[in-house]
Amino acid sequence: MKKFINNPVNVVKEELEGIALAHPDLVQVYFGPNYIVRADAPVKGKVGLVSGGGSGHEPMHGGFVGRGMLDAACPGEVFTSPTPDQMLEAARMVNGGRGVLFIVKNYTGDVMNFEMAAELAAAEGIEVQSVLIDDDVAVEDSLYTAGRRGVGCTVLAEKMCGAAAEEGRSLDEVADICRKVNSWGRSMGMALTSCTVPHAGRPTFDLPEDEMEIGIGIHGEPGRTRMALKPADDIVEMLMEAILKDLPFKSGDEVLLFVNSMGGTPLVELYIAYRRAHQVAEKNGLKVRRNLVGPYITSLEMAGVSITLLKLDEELIHCWDAPVYTPGLRWGI
Amino acid sequence: MKKFINNPVNVVKEELEGIALAHPDLVQVYFGPNYIVRADAPVKGKVGLVSGGGSGHEPMHGGFVGRGMLDAACPGEVFTSPTPDQMLEAARMVNGGRGVLFIVKNYTGDVMNFEMAAELAAAEGIEVQSVLIDDDVAVEDSLYTAGRRGVGCTVLAEKMCGAAAEEGRSLDEVADICRKVNSWGRSMGMALTSCTVPHAGRPTFDLPEDEMEIGIGIHGEPGRTRMALKPADDIVEMLMEAILKDLPFKSGDEVLLFVNSMGGTPLVELYIAYRRAHQVAEKNGLKVRRNLVGPYITSLEMAGVSITLLKLDEELIHCWDAPVYTPGLRWGI
Repeated sequence: MKKFINNPVNVVKEELEGIALAHPDLVQVYFGPNYIVRADAPVKGKVGLVSGGGSGHEPMHGGFVGRGMLDAACPGEVFTSPTPDQMLEAARMVNGGRGVLFIVKNYTGDVMNFEMAAELAAAEGIEVQSVLIDDDVAVEDSLYTAGRRGVGCTVLAEKMCGAAAEEGRSLDEVADICRKVNSWGRSMGMALTSCTVPHAGRPTFDLPEDEMEIGIGIHGEPGRTRMALKPADDIVEMLMEAILKDLPFKSGDEVLLFVNSMGGTPLVELYIAYRRAHQVAEKNGLKVRRNLVGPYITSLEMAGVSITLLKLDEELIHCWDAPVYTPGLRWGI
Repeated sequence: MKKFINNPVNVVKEELEGIALAHPDLVQVYFGPNYIVRADAPVKGKVGLVSGGGSGHEPMHGGFVGRGMLDAACPGEVFTSPTPDQMLEAARMVNGGRGVLFIVKNYTGDVMNFEMAAELAAAEGIEVQSVLIDDDVAVEDSLYTAGRRGVGCTVLAEKMCGAAAEEGRSLDEVADICRKVNSWGRSMGMALTSCTVPHAGRPTFDLPEDEMEIGIGIHGEPGRTRMALKPADDIVEMLMEAILKDLPFKSGDEVLLFVNSMGGTPLVELYIAYRRAHQVAEKNGLKVRRNLVGPYITSLEMAGVSITLLKLDEELIHCWDAPVYTPGLRWGI
């Protein structure tokens, strides 16, 4: 896989330099340790929201830093957990006196390092809570996790918690919303192709031209099964069935339907996926009150899609609709 | 290339069905002939903006229909011009009594069919003007054009004209802004890989694993040259040199810098491209006042980037910053 890069060693550094040049009105980028904070951090009297994880999933997380979403993001190297010093520096920078929430995707390295950072921050007198996102129904344990992986719900949690924090809610309240999003949301993804980590220089896995991987992880970790490539509608039905069975959603529920590109799948195909997912949701009696369609939590250039279904109540709808102004998600401002 | 589709024959139809299900608050989708109009069309007393072209470039154009941008888009089949009846129906639907502007990318089929539609509309008493976009500096004539191709400037023209129309300016004034954007903007693209038209089922062209195509068209048309793959910075410098030489931009100019993914190039690589493009612009004395980074005018899943540089004045900045609310571009609302 050809890539539009310079030296593979500098991919994340140069990406961050690009973000800094493109969005100085929204974010500041710090190097050594690397983190991105909103331009006006710390915001006094506001809970600070910090997330982070390996790079390669852009716009998540760095593209979600700004008003109404994250206060800071800690990017690791591609598909590699960030380190506690990044998280600690970020926590210091966004601490506006109402405490800091770490939104942590459930991967072993992320969990361990965010835990260590939380202890270090607490030792400095910064009040920290952490909420784990583990919404991927594909497999129970996986290559990099004990328990389920954190995927699409992370984007939704960051948006909704960001709105709650912006409105001045307390650390307990913002953490509650994060837990609600995680417990009310379920996701599953699939891949048509692998991706190539720049440093590795070869595809993470081999997938024959006539096969696909159902339940893929966002780092290319194995999913549930490999099978012959099927029509888009069949694939969506498989993903939706696994998701719907897991929560379980029930007829009459209002939902947010998030259809995500893994990176290489273009919008024309994503809307074909959205079409069927929406139809399946309605056939099951769900009312799609909100949606999101696009590449928001990606795996480099991997072709594939993931679907996230989140049960909504009026509080979550309110938090979703609230203004947001970040490089990757923007409305109302 | 594996695709997330059902029957290749239904790709555009099913995509449009997905758009209709996802964005009923913003757009209405009509079938047979196919076109997308903003949900509240026609807007009385407002110039109606219509664009269109082959599908496969999403979010352009259908994703730019909504408040503050296009009133209607006419999607052809993938990489195939829409037909005059689509354009005529769209013109009828968006005619709010102040006339209709066709924004036409310079490809032979698009030009011919928009011309015919303009005549048909005029015969019905709808005042129509057309502006041609031909900003691609790569080649003088090409496979599907007499003269230069219309590429990235189309997105910028649709946004800026949309703002002007929304503010109630006249057809002459909106057309003037469109011509200004086209005459002040220059673009060039490159590809790392081909794309595959669903109906064709095989890549549009072959590009060896160690080569790239400089000056590619958005339908995979040949560009200036093929050469060995180079580091991202070198590629950006080549594109910027061709663009800067062509206008010519001069030191002190304020510009909008638009770094676009051809579809398959992920955001992490796009910011690496943005970084160098911004640096080159500044080295040439340009002041980057606004920017846009992302996949906005794509070529299915093609990996590659294009760069558009647009000279700005206060009028264009005003039109750029104005609120926009479409599936593909949204701020201020």
